[in-house]
Amino acid sequence: MAEGLAADGLPPFRKVSDIAASGVSASAVMRETLRRVRAYEVVQPEVWISRFSDAALMAMAEAVEARVAAGEVLPLAGVPFAVKDNIDVAGLQTTAGCSAFATTPAQSARVVARLVAAGAIPVGKTNLDQFATGLVGTRSPYGACRAVHNRAWISGGSSSGSAVAVAAGLVPFALGTDTAGSGRVPAALNGLFGFKPTKGRWSTAGLVPACRSLDCISIFTHDAADAALLDGCIAGFDAADDYSREGADVPLPQAALRLAIPLPSQLNFLGDAGSARLWAAALERVRALGAVPVEVDIAPLLEAARLLYEGPWVAERTAAVEPLLRSKPQAIHPVVRGIVQGGLAMSAMDAFRGEYALKALARRAAALFGQVDALLLPTCPTSYRVRELLAEPLALNANMGLYTNFVNLLDMAAIAVPAGFRANATGFGVSFIAPAFTDRALLALAAAYQEIAPMPDVPPLDVKGVAETVELAVVGAHLAGMPLHWQLTSRGAELVRRCRTAPAYRLFAIANSVPPKPALVHGGSAAIEVEVYRLPVAAFGSFVVEVPAPLAIGTVELEDGTSVKGFVAEPRALDGAADITDFGGWRGYIRSLG
Amino acid sequence: MAEGLAADGLPPFRKVSDIAASGVSASAVMRETLRRVRAYEVVQPEVWISRFSDAALMAMAEAVEARVAAGEVLPLAGVPFAVKDNIDVAGLQTTAGCSAFATTPAQSARVVARLVAAGAIPVGKTNLDQFATGLVGTRSPYGACRAVHNRAWISGGSSSGSAVAVAAGLVPFALGTDTAGSGRVPAALNGLFGFKPTKGRWSTAGLVPACRSLDCISIFTHDAADAALLDGCIAGFDAADDYSREGADVPLPQAALRLAIPLPSQLNFLGDAGSARLWAAALERVRALGAVPVEVDIAPLLEAARLLYEGPWVAERTAAVEPLLRSKPQAIHPVVRGIVQGGLAMSAMDAFRGEYALKALARRAAALFGQVDALLLPTCPTSYRVRELLAEPLALNANMGLYTNFVNLLDMAAIAVPAGFRANATGFGVSFIAPAFTDRALLALAAAYQEIAPMPDVPPLDVKGVAETVELAVVGAHLAGMPLHWQLTSRGAELVRRCRTAPAYRLFAIANSVPPKPALVHGGSAAIEVEVYRLPVAAFGSFVVEVPAPLAIGTVELEDGTSVKGFVAEPRALDGAADITDFGGWRGYIRSLG
Repeated sequence: MAEGLAADGLPPFRKVSDIAASGVSASAVMRETLRRVRAYEVVQPEVWISRFSDAALMAMAEAVEARVAAGEVLPLAGVPFAVKDNIDVAGLQTTAGCSAFATTPAQSARVVARLVAAGAIPVGKTNLDQFATGLVGTRSPYGACRAVHNRAWISGGSSSGSAVAVAAGLVPFALGTDTAGSGRVPAALNGLFGFKPTKGRWSTAGLVPACRSLDCISIFTHDAADAALLDGCIAGFDAADDYSREGADVPLPQAALRLAIPLPSQLNFLGDAGSARLWAAALERVRALGAVPVEVDIAPLLEAARLLYEGPWVAERTAAVEPLLRSKPQAIHPVVRGIVQGGLAMSAMDAFRGEYALKALARRAAALFGQVDALLLPTCPTSYRVRELLAEPLALNANMGLYTNFVNLLDMAAIAVPAGFRANATGFGVSFIAPAFTDRALLALAAAYQEIAPMPDVPPLDVKGVAETVELAVVGAHLAGMPLHWQLTSRGAELVRRCRTAPAYRLFAIANSVPPKPALVHGGSAAIEVEVYRLPVAAFGSFVVEVPAPLAIGTVELEDGTSVKGFVAEPRALDGAADITDFGGWRGYIRSLG
Repeated sequence: MAEGLAADGLPPFRKVSDIAASGVSASAVMRETLRRVRAYEVVQPEVWISRFSDAALMAMAEAVEARVAAGEVLPLAGVPFAVKDNIDVAGLQTTAGCSAFATTPAQSARVVARLVAAGAIPVGKTNLDQFATGLVGTRSPYGACRAVHNRAWISGGSSSGSAVAVAAGLVPFALGTDTAGSGRVPAALNGLFGFKPTKGRWSTAGLVPACRSLDCISIFTHDAADAALLDGCIAGFDAADDYSREGADVPLPQAALRLAIPLPSQLNFLGDAGSARLWAAALERVRALGAVPVEVDIAPLLEAARLLYEGPWVAERTAAVEPLLRSKPQAIHPVVRGIVQGGLAMSAMDAFRGEYALKALARRAAALFGQVDALLLPTCPTSYRVRELLAEPLALNANMGLYTNFVNLLDMAAIAVPAGFRANATGFGVSFIAPAFTDRALLALAAAYQEIAPMPDVPPLDVKGVAETVELAVVGAHLAGMPLHWQLTSRGAELVRRCRTAPAYRLFAIANSVPPKPALVHGGSAAIEVEVYRLPVAAFGSFVVEVPAPLAIGTVELEDGTSVKGFVAEPRALDGAADITDFGGWRGYIRSLG
């Protein structure tokens, strides 16, 4: 539904390049984006924590148009995007998934500012595992996001809302973050590319820390080339970020790339046959690409992965939230609270010993790159149902990070690429991983992979239970541009057509109504102008609730002989009302008022 | 005295190049080294914690000779050196200044192994501030080392014994270590070069950690060129050291080098006018070199310096000794114990927050290198008497690190160079400091400084109270090569001449003496062969103590008419003794026994 025909006839778009190349105005793109956002909100109201108002977003779109008109060359002109809610966007709260923690930043995070400078428009802030502590999407008081193709299953996290927003087609890209794998796991489960650059390549100024020494901002796209384009807009040294780094691009071989894959004994899908099948298929694809998978002992990687939650880095998470943890522990999600409380008891000696252990593992990991050029690993071994995760929140979460947790600790870059869908429609992904500053080479590798291995058939979005829609004819204050139109747009309504009623009506202006409202009365001979909207049945009930007397929702006959639900009036609506039938519709009457 | 004429006529040597270029055999160098070591041991018995036996050292020297004879090209053939006792040397204990902590390593530290491979010979292990925790030299149960030119003053530390060993001319170079400034402060106070390479440039495999993430092995020399030569022998990646790093040499400008110096308000000599005068003179010297001092705000450096002992890095020291600290705290030097106990209460959050603070300071420090190429700072602001340090061990120690503590935290390389002596004969030094991997450029800079600013007149070694010597004529078992000769060499005795007594003696072989001993008896007409040794008066008493009856130390008349102290005998020595006067001396008699 999010990808259906736009209200104003805009063609569907999924990728950044669909917009950048389309010539469609930023305003048109934004209107369509708002339609999709509202439509999908019925399916997963958990995606967003906050958004800019329609008016603010339309103003931003118009500002982009003005910049383009003034001659600015904007690589992302009018491209809407979503921002994980642990990254500052000026004008919106930053909650990190915890309302008690919320702040209102004075300025946007540097990456957001760079995207805005390039013409992109931040639509709103997305849900996440609280404090980015999780790989599942279920650890949020704002609700659990779910996999877009099968909502019984987890979306993955912690960048859950961002991944869902892109996978559902609401925006062509979204910012996530990635400390343990939060930018890759939800990409895999929703059929996306998830690019996690080298630590320090993208500024983290304006990011709520999870593990500050490890955190990366990441990006979700439908397309490797989009990720490369966005990296070009974002990457660069930032003196405001103490962890910012500069590094020359490190190339990878163009031919016969040696890709480390795990020893058979280290390839663990936790019993998931679907994963195993898709992994084998992915291997065939990379062979077709000319790469050479080489089985190597990845024990140092697996050991480093365990360090992330078993070692002192947990205390970085604790340090990030310590005042709240000590003053209002109950404000923190219970699972997350349990984790961050664990950091209170860790000693500085533990911290340094963890660093020593990591240094030793880094040495062993570096030795791998004598044998291979890059790594190819499953992004995650399997997936779980939301209810399974809620029942066993720690162990299953840990399973999800088996092949991702080591990457930042060992200072590598990674891109998760889609590798098909299981029979249950949950996504499986593989990740290309290589040492720091191979970012551009990894992006090129992912693009080559995408080219030789066209994306598998993507299952339809799962909209079960919310997909039913209803058509509603509106006559007066709900028409586009009228005072109550927002009651439609806020429910994801989309315009189906503008038309007239059957020639069997009269129209009155109700007396003393604020805002002014008409009453459409059956029993005349006029065809009255209406707009017909389609909106989810699930959202319709709340709309009806808001309709004030003497108006009501009944049935309206249209000029083509069909009937839809629509605004009608009680008889008392006519007390003192003016007959305005001759205007042919509410717009004509309003215009006559000057 | 350590630099006096060698027993066997070897010319004096101070530098590595004095030996390498001399053509003198390794054995001859080692004999002279042992003489110096023994002579100076009377002055500062605290210098060494352990040494190889004479026999072992002579065997090592002969092994070097054999390698040279076999055609090996050894840049350090036969060069003796000292090793701080927190660095492993196979065959000697490693105490780190704490006997309860001692271990006996199976193999030498990698840097020692590389030096040995190049032909150098480790003489022994030197005293240090326990666990390398201090900048003063007073924190050792093995006694406090003192400045070689004025022993009322501290030697500096923690590499106290190594600096003293080089400054006293015992060995031409010595290994120290440097975490806070332990390789630079004692260089300054004793008129030496102290080179602290970039972290990871020299392997730390085989080093007892102080702060493992910061520790460097360092070197003391009399000469910048020596330091460069040694760096060439030592530097290189070591896979056995998790902190080993590789980096291309970073150059510094050849001309008009911009040298940051502190703002006048940041130049703090703690009231030491001598330091201020020598600093001004050093500035003139670097100007003569063509360098351009530039006053800059060094606040970020000063703040980082304070972090080292006020921040979480103390917990690295604690981690290094935790089992001993918990099981036998009384085994640790009280001042050091107080410091390492402070690390027990630090949390992992403290550790990470310290890293964050350091990252922020590193960013500010890096900005300095936009304005300048390198830094020139006093190595330490002042110095203190040993008794002052003992009275106020923490605050005065902290003062010594004012301009050194930040260097490893901020990942810089440094070389301390001598810059003259105060009126009290304690050394003052300045340090050239620059970003990681400028090592070769810094060594070249120090060499240029040395060339344009010849070393100031070095005050004589302070041997007050121990400098008086006595000449002693020996007749029998104490002659060179005889069984009791070690009683002389172990006291630093040096051979003055071989000659005869006045023609007024008889010589007897004492009955039943083990080993065989003669009795020199006045009252004959023979001139008996003797060897005359000079040894410190301070050592003479203990020698006399060891003389067994019926022998005694009396006065012996020599053939030139002078008298010296010498071996005489009680009358009872003649009971059953054989008159061996006709042999003319003890050697002839011994030879006659076959």
